[in-house]
Amino acid sequence: MYLTQPLHRNRQQKPNDIATICGERTFTHAEFYDRVARLAGGLRASGAEPGDRIAILALNSDRYFEFIHAIAWADAVMVPVNIRWSAKEIAYSLVEAGVRILAVDDAFLSLLGAVRELTPGLETILHCGDAPTPDGMLSYEALVAESDPLPDAHRRGDALAGIFYTGGTTGFPKGVMLSHRNLFASAMGCAAAGTVTANGRVLHAAPMFHLADLGLAVIHSALGGSHVFIPSFEPVATMAAIGQHGITDVLLVPTMIQMIADHPRRAEFDLSSLRQLTYGASPISEALIDRARKAFPAAEFAQAYGMTELAPAATILRDEHHADPALRRSAGKPAPHVLVKITDEAGDEVPRGTVGEIVVSGENVMLGYWNKPEETAAAVRDGWMHTGDGGYMDENGFVFIADRIKDMIISGGENVYSVEVENAIAKHPAVTQCAVIGVPDPQWGERVHAVVSISDESTLELEELREHCKKEIAGYKVPRSMEIVDEFPLSAAGKILKAELRKRNTG
Amino acid sequence: MYLTQPLHRNRQQKPNDIATICGERTFTHAEFYDRVARLAGGLRASGAEPGDRIAILALNSDRYFEFIHAIAWADAVMVPVNIRWSAKEIAYSLVEAGVRILAVDDAFLSLLGAVRELTPGLETILHCGDAPTPDGMLSYEALVAESDPLPDAHRRGDALAGIFYTGGTTGFPKGVMLSHRNLFASAMGCAAAGTVTANGRVLHAAPMFHLADLGLAVIHSALGGSHVFIPSFEPVATMAAIGQHGITDVLLVPTMIQMIADHPRRAEFDLSSLRQLTYGASPISEALIDRARKAFPAAEFAQAYGMTELAPAATILRDEHHADPALRRSAGKPAPHVLVKITDEAGDEVPRGTVGEIVVSGENVMLGYWNKPEETAAAVRDGWMHTGDGGYMDENGFVFIADRIKDMIISGGENVYSVEVENAIAKHPAVTQCAVIGVPDPQWGERVHAVVSISDESTLELEELREHCKKEIAGYKVPRSMEIVDEFPLSAAGKILKAELRKRNTG
Repeated sequence: MYLTQPLHRNRQQKPNDIATICGERTFTHAEFYDRVARLAGGLRASGAEPGDRIAILALNSDRYFEFIHAIAWADAVMVPVNIRWSAKEIAYSLVEAGVRILAVDDAFLSLLGAVRELTPGLETILHCGDAPTPDGMLSYEALVAESDPLPDAHRRGDALAGIFYTGGTTGFPKGVMLSHRNLFASAMGCAAAGTVTANGRVLHAAPMFHLADLGLAVIHSALGGSHVFIPSFEPVATMAAIGQHGITDVLLVPTMIQMIADHPRRAEFDLSSLRQLTYGASPISEALIDRARKAFPAAEFAQAYGMTELAPAATILRDEHHADPALRRSAGKPAPHVLVKITDEAGDEVPRGTVGEIVVSGENVMLGYWNKPEETAAAVRDGWMHTGDGGYMDENGFVFIADRIKDMIISGGENVYSVEVENAIAKHPAVTQCAVIGVPDPQWGERVHAVVSISDESTLELEELREHCKKEIAGYKVPRSMEIVDEFPLSAAGKILKAELRKRNTG
Repeated sequence: MYLTQPLHRNRQQKPNDIATICGERTFTHAEFYDRVARLAGGLRASGAEPGDRIAILALNSDRYFEFIHAIAWADAVMVPVNIRWSAKEIAYSLVEAGVRILAVDDAFLSLLGAVRELTPGLETILHCGDAPTPDGMLSYEALVAESDPLPDAHRRGDALAGIFYTGGTTGFPKGVMLSHRNLFASAMGCAAAGTVTANGRVLHAAPMFHLADLGLAVIHSALGGSHVFIPSFEPVATMAAIGQHGITDVLLVPTMIQMIADHPRRAEFDLSSLRQLTYGASPISEALIDRARKAFPAAEFAQAYGMTELAPAATILRDEHHADPALRRSAGKPAPHVLVKITDEAGDEVPRGTVGEIVVSGENVMLGYWNKPEETAAAVRDGWMHTGDGGYMDENGFVFIADRIKDMIISGGENVYSVEVENAIAKHPAVTQCAVIGVPDPQWGERVHAVVSISDESTLELEELREHCKKEIAGYKVPRSMEIVDEFPLSAAGKILKAELRKRNTG
């Protein structure tokens, strides 16, 4: 299977059904197909060659979705740009990937000048926003309207589908090369695992440049679904879209779920159409799962763990496993399309319950890092992706993610895994979110530090929380310092940015 | 994904759950894994080299299932033998595939002498029956007990998984080469389409040498299911197994469904555990679907159309489409893993509603015919499998199978597609099954001839049936001759053997 394949199937089977909804714009599958074919023709006419890397820097929209399909249709390679990046980071990735054509929407026009200055190879800018097209740029809608449709290149198999830059928030960005086969191995594995509504209607609220949402998009097209887009996550817009369009499936992160579950206007919206709520980035706390189930009464919850290099899914925590508080802190079991092992530094599998590195094999494992053969060889060994994530597996195959191995806290010579401490803290009913990090300490080398948010109605004192932890975990794991915050620094994907927290606590 | 991959997953996630049940024998996933690894070691020690073709001629059993996994585990290629074939046909395929090792169970020991005589290259016979192992053969259980486990070769991707001989009933057998990727493209497509119960318990009643059942087996292993085996389809044994083992999924053909639905002892068995009933080979008639739903009150019905060359599925008729009598005669819509076109002789797509050849593309399309590059080139052109089946597609993508193009009836210069006539006949409430063929006729060249079975309580006269047809279809399509039969000649897969019917009517 490959990116453009579902367009042919959906046009064949349901030409007049809705394919995409974005604000006031609605397109059928026949129209979607036609627009993509024309846009691909426009890209070709604008100089796009087979194998070219073509980038997009934009908020979510139907055009974003059309554009990435048109790129594949024209036998080229998509480079979705991280919307949280600085001009410098963006330019770094565009230069490294050799991008000559970039699509940009209104939200990023102001950033464009700086990006262009740092990216001399950029030849063509395609404006895909709703505002008038600035001088010197191609108009997206004009390109669709005025171009002849191109026949589909049917780019597929091991051919490169996209380069997805990661790691911009910590260290040097790396371009993850994913093939069409990679994307669909993950997509079909998740679909076979039953976490996708066939012929559903999926809402794209999480950012589409990220594989979490893009992976879900791919599955839904393959199963005949339709797509609704909002520019970015915002709780009221998300609830309104679900109610208005009968959304069946959505991908969120726990932070977003919480913002909806606790929203004062929640009762105004009908969220009962939602069948599947897939979340990632972190487990869902006991307090939140109950509130989330009330907010989405008909939804099954599934947690997916993975990474861009895995296109992206590796493990899935099914709805029925959320009832058990111990399992709910896991990332679920290896999905049908992968094998997962926990290994020691020598690469040998460790006993169940022992923390090691999570390694994954399957047809979803990336082709490699763009232009980085050494990093590729270090990450993918004998077909196994070395995730860099620490974790352990229980007797039934449930994977528990410890912290990033490199982020493991060594305090007084003892190894402390943040996840274990976080789980202990999260058991306190007043805690809504928490993150545990190591901060430099003259006495202990590193000290276990907890950053916590608590529910509005709570008056929790830190001393009480410390006493709670002492009952749950060994003394050396109990945070020596704690702070309560109103909100956490989050990545574009909604992950808590521990690097950011560390910076604040070391400065 | 690949054949042995689910063994690792299932042992990891549910080592002590049941993997296989066959008569009195039950094995857990850990035991199944261990037996396959040892059997693979035994095969290697018995001279099996990587890439060797290793055959099995046996009724359904847990050992059949273990054996084909052990073959892949040992980096070799399975050759499941059609159990309806003569010694001559079997020998033809074994010689052509260069088979040196053959497993055989008690049911086929009497045939073995003749097969060996015609297959000089056969070096090793493995006896996988329950009777004492005859002299000169290896004992299956001894091989499992006495061999050291081999590490899994993880044979996968485009590597050959098996050679599946087809066409033995008409013409020269051809060995369909299927890769691991082929098998799992179809399996995951069907799973994603929702026609498989995850963690289910599947009954193997249809013959396992055939891709229809083997394809279902592959899916269930991938989704953590367990397997129950009966030697071959027999209505009471099938009903007993469903009731005793809480079977959730089964593949049958309409003839088998009918034998259960109309069985006088049906009420003795609890068939309410069945969730998914997949059937193939032909549509299900209006009269039968109602009786079948009563027999299997909790089951969803899905029809799959495909062929060995497609590993095997191409289209799926979902449960909800069975309510519409017109759609129920279709083979459903193209499944997520394929594209389907209806083409004319020039290879161009024909308008909807027009009969042409059904051609299919996808990662399930076979690698080719073993040692037959010309036949391969004729069948697979530019990635599209030319099925040789005639059919048309309606406006919503439903595919209707006409007869084999080469079997199209030309009567008085007019083209008559059997399916259209069969559909007309099947609409009569007294008809339980029918087949329409062309027979030589001095006046018309070919004459449309109908073979019909009717329900026991009916006293239908052929003249009444003819009048019924006249209301449904054009005069030249109405059968000029008809006969009522008690039963039809069936292939091992339960397909009505039209070639056989033709022979009877031309002799």
